[in-house]
This record gives sequence, structure tokens and C-alpha cells, in this order.
Amino acid sequence: MHTNRIRIVLVHTSHPGNIGGVARAMKNMGLGRLYLVQPKRFPDHEADWRAASAQDVLADAVVCESVEQAISDCHFVVGTSARGRRIPWPLQNPRQCAPQIAQAADNGEVAILFGREDRGLTNEELQQCHLHLNIPTSEAYSSLNLAMAVQIVAYELKMHEVGEGDPAEAQWDAPFSTNEEVERFYQHLEQTLVDIEFLNPAAPRQLMTRLRRLYSRVRLDEMELNILRGILTETQKWVQRVKSSKE
Amino acid sequence: MHTNRIRIVLVHTSHPGNIGGVARAMKNMGLGRLYLVQPKRFPDHEADWRAASAQDVLADAVVCESVEQAISDCHFVVGTSARGRRIPWPLQNPRQCAPQIAQAADNGEVAILFGREDRGLTNEELQQCHLHLNIPTSEAYSSLNLAMAVQIVAYELKMHEVGEGDPAEAQWDAPFSTNEEVERFYQHLEQTLVDIEFLNPAAPRQLMTRLRRLYSRVRLDEMELNILRGILTETQKWVQRVKSSKE
Repeated sequence: MHTNRIRIVLVHTSHPGNIGGVARAMKNMGLGRLYLVQPKRFPDHEADWRAASAQDVLADAVVCESVEQAISDCHFVVGTSARGRRIPWPLQNPRQCAPQIAQAADNGEVAILFGREDRGLTNEELQQCHLHLNIPTSEAYSSLNLAMAVQIVAYELKMHEVGEGDPAEAQWDAPFSTNEEVERFYQHLEQTLVDIEFLNPAAPRQLMTRLRRLYSRVRLDEMELNILRGILTETQKWVQRVKSSKE
Repeated sequence: MHTNRIRIVLVHTSHPGNIGGVARAMKNMGLGRLYLVQPKRFPDHEADWRAASAQDVLADAVVCESVEQAISDCHFVVGTSARGRRIPWPLQNPRQCAPQIAQAADNGEVAILFGREDRGLTNEELQQCHLHLNIPTSEAYSSLNLAMAVQIVAYELKMHEVGEGDPAEAQWDAPFSTNEEVERFYQHLEQTLVDIEFLNPAAPRQLMTRLRRLYSRVRLDEMELNILRGILTETQKWVQRVKSSKE
């Protein structure tokens, strides 16, 4: 993904802390290009503080006089918006529009606009956009913090980039057991439960079924299987000691 | 979705501003239950300020002395984590685990744990979780702000709620065990492994950690827990028989 062709444009931001929070949110998700349209206070120590290790994003930020200036070389512009504008625009959630943004960035410059803390983007600004983006929220409190909104959109771009995949599978520290190995474990378990007289072979009820269902949910790895079989073997030895002491 | 059964647990938070940011992020996405384990400063005006219109979430926040206390009545616990722990746990991104969290909340109390700003959750805390959650980030700067991390996870829960809805899952036939019940099982298991001399308390190695990881992957139901504890009790009787025959 051409993340270097995606710019985040903050329009008339009041609080410098939010600018810093946006810079950090961007860098955390691999974005680096920040445009500021008439920020109230910038640069500012509060922006620096909230940016933490994203000082480079702040240092490279481009301050503009107007939205037009900030997006003049862009061929795809997305505007974030609360619902309920008078003239409905194509409206998508961040997940829906992430692939479109990524695809547009393959072909040229892309801008994502975020409005004022209190009033968002004006209708005039929104009408310069190809697509409107709406982040689903609770009806009880729908006003997202600016940096949070950027974080969510940047996260969706990152999720699009990394794709689905199974992170757990990729980094497990032991090979998973084969079906055959697990079957031998079940036989060993059943025999041990008979040995310790927990399982009556004449009336087994659903005991082994329940234990199979339990362990099949885990996907045992080989080390775990060795531990479990080691426990069974030790347990059987104690039964043997009792029996041989009686002989 | 039973959002009222999902609690956000912040562990040893240093900055009150983050607590406020979390409260707002939660309420924006329809979550309301905040637990604070030994917060450094709370209540605090910075928390109030950042919470904006989520003062009710702060007012209802439950301050706890320990993680155990915060999750004792939970039957499903998720811990947020950076990658690269020595013993990897089942690891999912927020999108993958949102349906599981929602489903677990249909059946009982659920906790999502977020760690310290600088060091996250300890290995010990993570080992109390059924699932580890990792938010994909840029390798260049992977340290997310705490409130941002909560925002992303809460957003994924909201997306799950507004989304198509998950394919109907067969209803489970027994209630799932609470965290407290599972902890008692681990203690019983450990004692039994010591009794049968499979586990040497002087050199325990990673045995209990591996067994915890194994069983936490399953989400034990109450009937399974009873079976496992029944096996342990029977096993201990055989050890007792050997020992009393020697006396």
C-alpha cells in the first residue's frame, strides 16, 4: 500500500493536544503526512507532548491557508462526517472505504479530511469530497475526539494492509499434534481413568465424549501432549504401587 | 449485544488524562463499565476534562486493589498485549476477537484488560486471560496510547454490533466457568501434580504456565470443570493410599 501518498488533513483544529494525538495515531499505523489548515495554535508544546515519539510527523507537517490548497494535487478526497447532512453524499464506514483509499493511493495522491472539534467539516468543505466517511458510534454520545477518529481510520488502513491472516498460528512455539497422536492420548487417558476407578467401563456414560470435546477445542501442541501423557503415566504408577503392595 | 456485561479494566494507569480519554472512547462506542486497578491518580480533574461528556462513566468507575478482584466474576477475560511474549498465547486482532467477546457477553461477564502505559500487562496478568489481543501497528512505532487502544477495541465491538450479525452459534449445553472457579481448578491441579511427584515445587519450570495456557484456550464449562476436578480428587486418593499403607 502506498501509505506515503495518503495525507491526513486537519481543518481548523482548536486544541494543539489533538494535533499531537493525531501525529502519534498516524505514525502508530504507518502514516506520516499531516496537513494542517489554519490550526489555532501550532507549533505548541502540548502538541509535542501528546505526539510522544511522532515528533517527525509534527516537524514535517504542512500548514495551509485553505482546504483547497491542502488538497489541490489530490485525485481522491474523503471527508469525515457525522450523519444527517442535508444533501446526502455517498457515505461509508471506515472499513468499507479503506480498500478504496488504498486503491486510490496506488494511482496518486489521496487526502482524508477531518473537521473542527466542535462542528466538523462545513457543507462546502464536504462537497469537495468524493466520498463521505462516517464512524459508527453510540447514539447516546456520538461526538468522537478528533485524534480518536483519525486513529480509527488509520487503524482500518493498517488492517487492510495486513489483511486477515492468523497471527496466533504464525508464531506458536511448538508444532501442533497430529490426529493420530491425539487419539493415542485419548486411549491413554481412558485407560488411566479406568485404572484410578474414575471411569467404570461397564457404565462409561458420556465421560470420554465430554473429555474429547474439551481437548478437541484446544488444538493441543506436541509439548502439551507430552505434559498430559507424562501426568497420566505418573498417575498410573501410583495405582501400580497400591496394587503391588497388596500382592 | 450485551454491552452492559463487558467491562474495560485499566491496570496501574499512570496518567489520569488517559482514564478520561478511555471513558469517552467507551461511551462513544456504547460501553459504560470501567474498572481501575490501582490507578496512580483518580479521581483527577485531568480525567474529568478528557472524559468530556462521559462523566457518568468516570462516576461509576470501580476502583480495585488487584486484577484478580476486578475479574473474579468474569468467565471470559481478554488481555491486550504487544507481540513477542516467551510463551505465546492465542493471539487475535481486535476484529477477530470482537465476535468472541460479544458471544461471551451473551452468557455472562466479560473483561478486557489494558496494561500500564509504559510496560503493558505483566506475564502473570496475561496468564489469567483466555485470549490475547494484539492491535496491528507500524513496526516503526508500535506503542499505542492507552485510550487509543481502548478506542480501537471498542470500535470493533461497535462494528460487530452494527454489522451483519454473526452466524447463529449452537447454544452451549452447560454454563461456562467463572474465573474464580478456574483458578481453584489450577490450584487443585498444581497440588495434585506435586502429590504425584510430576511437578517439583523447587523447580517448577514452565509447567503450570503451559497448562494454564492449554486450559485457558478451551473456555471450560462447569461440567468439564467438575470432571477434571473429579479426576484430580480420585488421583489424590491413590497417593493417599500409598502413603497410609507405608505408615
